[in-house]
Amino acid sequence: MSGRGQSGVLYGVGLGPGDPDLMTLRAHRLISGAQVVAYPSLAGGASFARSIAAGAIPAGAREIVMDVPMTVERGPAQAAYDTGAAAIAAELEAGRDVVCLCEGDPFFYGSFMYLFARLSGRFRVEVVPGVTSITTCAARAGMPLAARNERLTVLPGPLPEPELRARIDGAESVAIMKVGRHLAKIRGVIEALGFTDRAVYVERASLPDEVVCPLAEAPEKAPYFSMILLTKGADPWL
Amino acid sequence: MSGRGQSGVLYGVGLGPGDPDLMTLRAHRLISGAQVVAYPSLAGGASFARSIAAGAIPAGAREIVMDVPMTVERGPAQAAYDTGAAAIAAELEAGRDVVCLCEGDPFFYGSFMYLFARLSGRFRVEVVPGVTSITTCAARAGMPLAARNERLTVLPGPLPEPELRARIDGAESVAIMKVGRHLAKIRGVIEALGFTDRAVYVERASLPDEVVCPLAEAPEKAPYFSMILLTKGADPWL
Repeated sequence: MSGRGQSGVLYGVGLGPGDPDLMTLRAHRLISGAQVVAYPSLAGGASFARSIAAGAIPAGAREIVMDVPMTVERGPAQAAYDTGAAAIAAELEAGRDVVCLCEGDPFFYGSFMYLFARLSGRFRVEVVPGVTSITTCAARAGMPLAARNERLTVLPGPLPEPELRARIDGAESVAIMKVGRHLAKIRGVIEALGFTDRAVYVERASLPDEVVCPLAEAPEKAPYFSMILLTKGADPWL
Repeated sequence: MSGRGQSGVLYGVGLGPGDPDLMTLRAHRLISGAQVVAYPSLAGGASFARSIAAGAIPAGAREIVMDVPMTVERGPAQAAYDTGAAAIAAELEAGRDVVCLCEGDPFFYGSFMYLFARLSGRFRVEVVPGVTSITTCAARAGMPLAARNERLTVLPGPLPEPELRARIDGAESVAIMKVGRHLAKIRGVIEALGFTDRAVYVERASLPDEVVCPLAEAPEKAPYFSMILLTKGADPWL
């Protein structure tokens, strides 16, 4: 991180999992005082990040929207972040702080990493951590994640089946992120390993339409913001 | 979780890593309105959890302090949680809500798990997730943890050296918690694997006396609240 006398500060602000009440005091204060906010949206559609922060964004704040396409190829998303970073840089160079809104935590599968990579060498950046979906899902499922000397493994659902199988088999507690269209594959792996009765499925944790159920009762179709938690310990926290 | 008409609700409230500003709005509101708060302290000494929440605890709130000894044997700590759970249960049975203060997140290496195991069958419990030390350390170190399909492995520092070595070797991003007196062992493992230049050391993240430095420059002695982060990706988020 480097600073210039006259430049603004870039804040990468974690918003937590979705319930605006799970924003930190610092996130809320920074957003409430923002002149400029920036956030990603899905190809012209709604921005989940903006919806979490909506109640705190001041009327009249300038908004920089980054339309990020969800493609397998990286090029289009990279171009969207290039464009967004240039617009943010212009504000920072004009001496205005920019508050970048990030679902969850900025450095944990967060879109802010792409802006950080583009701008942290030229501007002062402060990253404000947020509550992650992992501990939110655990809280909502009433399922403690890790105690004492237990290990926790975080796996993205898109990993290939053999890798998922090997990683889950060798793990203790497991959180599988980004389940979405990979649900059937993941469910098959967990079933084959005999861990289905230790797994829970959580969808849109902390939001009004949240779903929490045993993996065996999970719906056929899962949204992107869904997770499977699995713990192998036998009440190890007692 | 089960409820009784007249009983109070037990709130397990994550306070985040230490800076009171990293508490969630919900945590702050629950603490500010609490009639009864409960928290662990280390064998008669100060309570880190209470110190984080201090500015929000109402004057006149009843305080249940659990003196938890840091022993290798589990018996003394279990007895302390038994005693604490009984005192909390008495408040809940009298119809009063109890706000239990937890450093970090209640279900992520948190002491609240021990109370949850003792009380969730008899009383209504709500767990409020908090910002973990992992993403706070990443934020403070300017080190993104995981992007796209990367894996993250969380390892407790007390694990035996061969297991640490195997787990770090097979991982992508790694967070090693509870470094403390295990620093020399962990540093040796990372050095032997050739990853020292990709590792950072963070101590008391978000607190005024925070330390952030490359692992190679870490102090000889580490406190309990210290962490090592290691990422093997080559700017994978670009």
